Amino acid sequence: MAAPSLQFWFEFASTYSYVAAMRIGALAAKESVTVEWRPFLLGPIFKAQGWDTSPFNLYPAKGRYMWRDVERQCTELGLPFRRPDPFPQSSLMASRVALLGLGESWGEEFCRAMFRAEFADGRNIGEPAVVVEVLRALDMAPEPTLARAQGDDIKASLRAQTEEAQRLGLFGAPSFVADGELFWGNDRLEQALRCAQLGSSMPARMSS
Amino acid sequence: MAAPSLQFWFEFASTYSYVAAMRIGALAAKESVTVEWRPFLLGPIFKAQGWDTSPFNLYPAKGRYMWRDVERQCTELGLPFRRPDPFPQSSLMASRVALLGLGESWGEEFCRAMFRAEFADGRNIGEPAVVVEVLRALDMAPEPTLARAQGDDIKASLRAQTEEAQRLGLFGAPSFVADGELFWGNDRLEQALRCAQLGSSMPARMSS
Repeated sequence: MAAPSLQFWFEFASTYSYVAAMRIGALAAKESVTVEWRPFLLGPIFKAQGWDTSPFNLYPAKGRYMWRDVERQCTELGLPFRRPDPFPQSSLMASRVALLGLGESWGEEFCRAMFRAEFADGRNIGEPAVVVEVLRALDMAPEPTLARAQGDDIKASLRAQTEEAQRLGLFGAPSFVADGELFWGNDRLEQALRCAQLGSSMPARMSS
Repeated sequence: MAAPSLQFWFEFASTYSYVAAMRIGALAAKESVTVEWRPFLLGPIFKAQGWDTSPFNLYPAKGRYMWRDVERQCTELGLPFRRPDPFPQSSLMASRVALLGLGESWGEEFCRAMFRAEFADGRNIGEPAVVVEVLRALDMAPEPTLARAQGDDIKASLRAQTEEAQRLGLFGAPSFVADGELFWGNDRLEQALRCAQLGSSMPARMSS
């Protein structure tokens, strides 16, 4: 039997992706589940639904609630949290660099550092200078790394990744895929990990 | 100090309201929290956001996911589940009768029975005959009860209740209000109960 594994689909601009990214390592290690980090862009997916920004901006009641909810979740988990300004932030460069790093050895650490910069330190990850700083802190030479991250192959990979997200039926972030099942939201991380381990314990799909 | 209490805002057409309604009694009793059942209509709230039906119908990827997720949640909880047809169902009559019953002694039992009719037995609660059947099973005389539920005072109460939901910032169901904090979704029931008990343990609001 293959070792249990879980796909973790996330978007750097997404508040609940931050929470999941900070939790997933320890939880997955405890359950011996391998995590495949999958950055993607929500922009094209929202656009396909007719939205030109985050639904948290389009629907103010939902947005007000989200800010308070994330704050409460972070307090319960002991995670620092600052409301990003602007929101949502441009995650294109961070996602490309992440994709490069995840093909090498420094991707997960880079992802966590970008999330911390944005949601704990209040930095704007849409600014190249912030990505440069994070790379420096990881002892990665910023200029050659950014040049590689903006090569045609990485650009195409990120586009393909976002298209795969759409094919999988993703409509928000974070999402998890385990044993062919899709789970949406930080709240479903534990259930997704159980599914990765147990697979067949999930109920059969209804015919509908 | 007042006994801890929680407002449970629900909509009879809502799948996750069903799950919460089936769980809340035992959980709240264990934590010695009093639950105030608050039926309301999502229709006017959705309409104010520019939606003329459930977002699960408007956004197909979200809808497909929801059906699978509810099915998984119900399996984990040992709850029966059948996908209602049509969806969403007209909950106006059920909500009015519930409001009447919650002012008397039979409201909670009526609410659970309506949810079971819709989501466990596959009945259409928009049909008066189904409401009549549920009332009969509770030993309530259907005709006088329906007549009272359709009196001007109950009609006005349900409108007022839905307006209060909007003022509280509700945008979906189920929602919970405890100690001035709003919680959205069946997933937040446990946290809302903790908040009802502990109140001040919630983090202070960010200034924003």
